[in-house]
Amino acid sequence: MRIAVIGFGTVAKSLLKVLAEKSKLILDEYGVEIKTVGVFKKDGAFINTNGLDLEKIINSQNYRSEEEWVEAANFNKIAGELNCDCAVELTPTNVETSEPGLSHIKTALGYGMDVVTANKGPLALYYPELMELARQVKRRILFEATVAGAIPLFNLVRNTLRANRIISVKGILNGTTNYILSRMTSEKLPFKTVLKEAQRLGFAEADPSYDVDGIDAAAKLVILSNALLRKECRFKDVNRQGIRDITPEAIELARKDGFLIKHLAISEDGVLEVAPRLVEVGSSFAVSGSLNVVKLQTDLAKDLTLIGRGAGGVETASSVLNDILELAILRR
Amino acid sequence: MRIAVIGFGTVAKSLLKVLAEKSKLILDEYGVEIKTVGVFKKDGAFINTNGLDLEKIINSQNYRSEEEWVEAANFNKIAGELNCDCAVELTPTNVETSEPGLSHIKTALGYGMDVVTANKGPLALYYPELMELARQVKRRILFEATVAGAIPLFNLVRNTLRANRIISVKGILNGTTNYILSRMTSEKLPFKTVLKEAQRLGFAEADPSYDVDGIDAAAKLVILSNALLRKECRFKDVNRQGIRDITPEAIELARKDGFLIKHLAISEDGVLEVAPRLVEVGSSFAVSGSLNVVKLQTDLAKDLTLIGRGAGGVETASSVLNDILELAILRR
Repeated sequence: MRIAVIGFGTVAKSLLKVLAEKSKLILDEYGVEIKTVGVFKKDGAFINTNGLDLEKIINSQNYRSEEEWVEAANFNKIAGELNCDCAVELTPTNVETSEPGLSHIKTALGYGMDVVTANKGPLALYYPELMELARQVKRRILFEATVAGAIPLFNLVRNTLRANRIISVKGILNGTTNYILSRMTSEKLPFKTVLKEAQRLGFAEADPSYDVDGIDAAAKLVILSNALLRKECRFKDVNRQGIRDITPEAIELARKDGFLIKHLAISEDGVLEVAPRLVEVGSSFAVSGSLNVVKLQTDLAKDLTLIGRGAGGVETASSVLNDILELAILRR
Repeated sequence: MRIAVIGFGTVAKSLLKVLAEKSKLILDEYGVEIKTVGVFKKDGAFINTNGLDLEKIINSQNYRSEEEWVEAANFNKIAGELNCDCAVELTPTNVETSEPGLSHIKTALGYGMDVVTANKGPLALYYPELMELARQVKRRILFEATVAGAIPLFNLVRNTLRANRIISVKGILNGTTNYILSRMTSEKLPFKTVLKEAQRLGFAEADPSYDVDGIDAAAKLVILSNALLRKECRFKDVNRQGIRDITPEAIELARKDGFLIKHLAISEDGVLEVAPRLVEVGSSFAVSGSLNVVKLQTDLAKDLTLIGRGAGGVETASSVLNDILELAILRR
């Protein structure tokens, strides 16, 4: 299986590291050899159609001087020369244009590659179109890492809940807002104070809107709804309310009645909503810190709740790698 | 795919019902036709090598008068005549002899059938031998339903956590003891009182030893350890302590420090243990009622916790059906 990795952020670097470390295990267990033929950064790419030395790329001190570095190489332009089976799209999410991810995915499909992605943008905006395009060219798009990091959801339903109908999905899909609400609850501090703390610690971005206004959670909810509930929907279909207006007083009032305020993403009966909601203390949604929680309501297995890491380089790479291996096993 | 269902308890009946209801969906989604050629009760079997009418069997008022009923038919004796791809072993668990399940599984493998089972006995006592036997005849034994009912664990690791190493497993694997401990905690009642209540409500057996002495949880832990931690081990290797000696006073003392007493099954660093343990209020193990919880510690995805129904006919049948479909897809 020959792959190209597009993007060079935390998840991409973790993936390359795991691929290097686990290549023998992957060959022994799955009979699959993963060759990475391209690694694309913003300003160029490492290219070797015989397979790159991943350790060298990860540890390179001056990447532009590396023999395999091709200045200004762009995936969309040179994809046809890579002789590649699978594009791994790991560029940052953009929920307005979904670029550059969208073009990368279309290019990959156009050249007959399967696609694995951790980028929410293209699927949050164009899920139906991209799946139709993949169907036409008889290729697959796998996207486990787009939602809830290391928690398997799409693979879970596809491979462990076969013949189950998924009735609803309810989750805490953004670790940053959960961290902020948890701190507001435990320390009785106002939103702005905790946000500043989270920004200082690197848990929240300088522009926190993506997290605290529910944009990230809404994008994830759209992908969950399309894939698991088979509801054709888009980012604009989500009723979205952030956590900026939540006060320590409201949290305290809820606590007195045995509830916590959590930022929930819910897709049920055709309605998609991201909003603060009360959850019972002691319920499976009452997790603190930056964890993600997803509860699936199904017809046979009934309610199934998963709690795990919603972010992190290696954790997210775990989901990306599982997708790559699923495709590799199918091609074997 | 031609299957024989052995056993006619709650799970078997639920499975037959689901197979009847979902046959069209299964054909449309997976391109698989499941034909049930035999359904074995204690005193005989329904046999039709062209496929049984499952609705008729489920609703039969006088089964011995049905045309397809064969009095005293025994799976071990007539397996060779069934022309069957997969035996679905659903007889009750016996952790002393593991019969009649063990013989059924050996017979099925001997005739070149794959095996799906919800019966803990054979695997708790002979996991290494049975897997070796399956390997020799190039057939598979799938057993998702043996542990934690509807919660996918074996399929989860196999199909959604590929290339992850499982470091430890920790869980609440018995719903009855969790129900008893939850009631003791919420109502401040002694063990014996709650046990009687549970027996009256049908949540506990007349002989409760299987649940409250941790026998059931230990059998499940052995299967988890063999399959997920790749530790060759048997039922006798589990350090096992039940919940009979837990007092409301001990529960109250723990509660004052922010802890609950839960009956945990833990496999870690080569040690298998089923025993009462303190868990923090607010942790993912603090679930009440008859739910099951399993936390997997992995090297890439890190900690992943699953909460769901550990018992119930349809819930357990969901796991059995997923295994059947996995095998059917492989044979397709």
